[in-house]
Amino acid sequence: MKKIVLLTGFEPFNQESINPSWEAVRALEGWSEAGFRVVVRQLPCLFGVAKLAMKNLIEELQPSVVIAVGQAGGRSDLSVERIAINVDDAPIADNNQRQLIDQPVVPGGPAAYFATLPIKAIVHALRDAGLPASVSQSAGTFVCNHVFYGLMHDSADFGTAIRAGFIHIPYLPQQAAAHPGAPSMALADMVAGLRIAVHTALLVKSDVREAGGVTH
Amino acid sequence: MKKIVLLTGFEPFNQESINPSWEAVRALEGWSEAGFRVVVRQLPCLFGVAKLAMKNLIEELQPSVVIAVGQAGGRSDLSVERIAINVDDAPIADNNQRQLIDQPVVPGGPAAYFATLPIKAIVHALRDAGLPASVSQSAGTFVCNHVFYGLMHDSADFGTAIRAGFIHIPYLPQQAAAHPGAPSMALADMVAGLRIAVHTALLVKSDVREAGGVTH
Amino acid sequence: MKKIVLLTGFEPFNQESINPSWEAVRALEGWSEAGFRVVVRQLPCLFGVAKLAMKNLIEELQPSVVIAVGQAGGRSDLSVERIAINVDDAPIADNNQRQLIDQPVVPGGPAAYFATLPIKAIVHALRDAGLPASVSQSAGTFVCNHVFYGLMHDSADFGTAIRAGFIHIPYLPQQAAAHPGAPSMALADMVAGLRIAVHTALLVKSDVREAGGVTH
Amino acid sequence: MKKIVLLTGFEPFNQESINPSWEAVRALEGWSEAGFRVVVRQLPCLFGVAKLAMKNLIEELQPSVVIAVGQAGGRSDLSVERIAINVDDAPIADNNQRQLIDQPVVPGGPAAYFATLPIKAIVHALRDAGLPASVSQSAGTFVCNHVFYGLMHDSADFGTAIRAGFIHIPYLPQQAAAHPGAPSMALADMVAGLRIAVHTALLVKSDVREAGGVTH
Repeated sequence: MKKIVLLTGFEPFNQESINPSWEAVRALEGWSEAGFRVVVRQLPCLFGVAKLAMKNLIEELQPSVVIAVGQAGGRSDLSVERIAINVDDAPIADNNQRQLIDQPVVPGGPAAYFATLPIKAIVHALRDAGLPASVSQSAGTFVCNHVFYGLMHDSADFGTAIRAGFIHIPYLPQQAAAHPGAPSMALADMVAGLRIAVHTALLVKSDVREAGGVTH
Repeated sequence: MKKIVLLTGFEPFNQESINPSWEAVRALEGWSEAGFRVVVRQLPCLFGVAKLAMKNLIEELQPSVVIAVGQAGGRSDLSVERIAINVDDAPIADNNQRQLIDQPVVPGGPAAYFATLPIKAIVHALRDAGLPASVSQSAGTFVCNHVFYGLMHDSADFGTAIRAGFIHIPYLPQQAAAHPGAPSMALADMVAGLRIAVHTALLVKSDVREAGGVTH
Repeated sequence: MKKIVLLTGFEPFNQESINPSWEAVRALEGWSEAGFRVVVRQLPCLFGVAKLAMKNLIEELQPSVVIAVGQAGGRSDLSVERIAINVDDAPIADNNQRQLIDQPVVPGGPAAYFATLPIKAIVHALRDAGLPASVSQSAGTFVCNHVFYGLMHDSADFGTAIRAGFIHIPYLPQQAAAHPGAPSMALADMVAGLRIAVHTALLVKSDVREAGGVTH
Repeated sequence: MKKIVLLTGFEPFNQESINPSWEAVRALEGWSEAGFRVVVRQLPCLFGVAKLAMKNLIEELQPSVVIAVGQAGGRSDLSVERIAINVDDAPIADNNQRQLIDQPVVPGGPAAYFATLPIKAIVHALRDAGLPASVSQSAGTFVCNHVFYGLMHDSADFGTAIRAGFIHIPYLPQQAAAHPGAPSMALADMVAGLRIAVHTALLVKSDVREAGGVTH
């Protein structure tokens, strides 16, 4: 039986009419190779609901790899998140007008989870392919981090059977056209980057040892 | 007889092995439509030599439109330059190891020339097409500005017969992959943007009146 | 008779209740040394009116040095402007709700004027004193540039008798406290910087030859 | 008996000859009020050694409040760290030429600890006092985070008896003078900010509920 790779993107939020994470993810719908097939799903930009949806997807699909993807307007590269933290602290409201402040994603849960994707190997492979990429030390404190934390929490029971993590991607050019000065990335490059991330997550046994940190 | 549109890009500089301006411009080689045909040329990243080459091209080709294109590593959009200033003040050496400091591009020339392209209309058209773009208030003080100033100086004699200006473009993704944090743009979007700029320069009689400035 | 040094700052604009340029300038009221005395004046943030006020001050005071100072929210250092350009292109309205777009500061005037202050020597002296400083290639296209252009235009008749220019300064800390992420500078450092700029403008005969430019 | 407040700063690193964290902290040496007295200590910029020094200080002094302070060159405000993570991933070597990559700060320790300082109340009080401040979602992965994680780990045994955390501060102006474009803050403002942080940590029982997060 083929391994399942679950890729999720979000619906638009924060006055945008499009979300690059969903555009990039859905472009991979139906992607299947000898050893795996990809399932794509859209998540709502809603605290609670999105996390629950992810939990249900994990139980239903029993994926080997899960990569949640989200929009990071203002970032310039494919940023592979290192860590999910147990706090919701929203600078803006979610799509249901909820703005949680300093609440745990999972009451009683650990302060944080590290991604179990080979994040350094992914960044290395992306750069080798000519795509701007970096390790990110924070996925923020909004719905992206919320889903990421929930994903790591809910997949922790599966041990090494699931490799999971989160990738933030920039605006699409058409979004940046309305945000003067904001960086962007072409959809084709985002899609190519996700393909590389999936392959790397499936193939690389232990992560590479390369600096990916920051002084502060 | 068809109008001539001259597009120039630069050779690589500053340790890069590629220059997006030349990649984007040369992709338009042979482009021809009912009313015009495009001529593309590469300029060296050399004070003096590049300016002279531009002057010779203007005299030889008698173009109706000239758009010089240059790499602006660190910028995130297609930035249409407003003004060329009469100073060379190089933060790095050119490709011949010359680093001019506070010398006029043209001794005795005016302090500056405004681009004669319809810069606001070009930015407007680029954004309408979903491409990130803005007016830039400074083309710097290196070889790009040097060529831009020379272009405006040498085309001034032709009055309104030549519309000329300069567009700075970001790194290509493969360059940004080696400059963590730097924004980039896909080559296809750069090329699409130049097509729009050329069409706008040929078709728009008087520039649109839209804010494109900055407070400082 | 003592030389006159004219320092101007602006009234608050853009929803601020304070303008660091006026705070810094008025701290130097009454400053007098053996060879010169300082006169400080506040300018309104108004197209036209501010330029006319500057013109009148020049005629009335016949200063040897004029340094107009303005707020550059978002910049991090004392930035000594190189060039004033002949265009008003306002991204926001002035304090009289006027938002000029693509109009010349002085119809028929040259495209630009270079500052006649020894800008490199000023930056050098500021850095030597431990103050962050740089040459800026654009004073923007709002009221600051408007006054700067007017100042250079109106002082041009006096030839080398007047050294004039513009220095942009950051937010004060109390302003930055309301603009998360914005850099700021302590008032005392701004004032110390203006003292150094005045001394340098009075004492340095010919500007130093140091790179102060940018590639783009 | 008076409560003890421990403030630590670092020795210079990364080619700097000064470290603002130590300059700011040592300015508070001998500070004592009715209910508390401050002890200041310098930590080396060394993996392992610095963490051990902090552990010894906690055991020796049994402080009620510990604020470790570190330099964040490039940041513009007093940034109060939310979370310390269990990873060393050094982009540069420490002062002993050690560059740890992807090693846990404490093998077997939890992925992260949240600061136990009232971080929102501190940011609120700083801004009220006109000082630029924000909550930071990442203290990086270098020696600052290393000490911060160690501090939280070693003070965890004391439960609510110790309030501990980390504040990153910008360059001093004299440092920024050598890093064109970098923001800075006057030493007096840093010191005033630390006083406010100490008072807030001692007086505020439960943290205020204000948004301090980011979308990504």
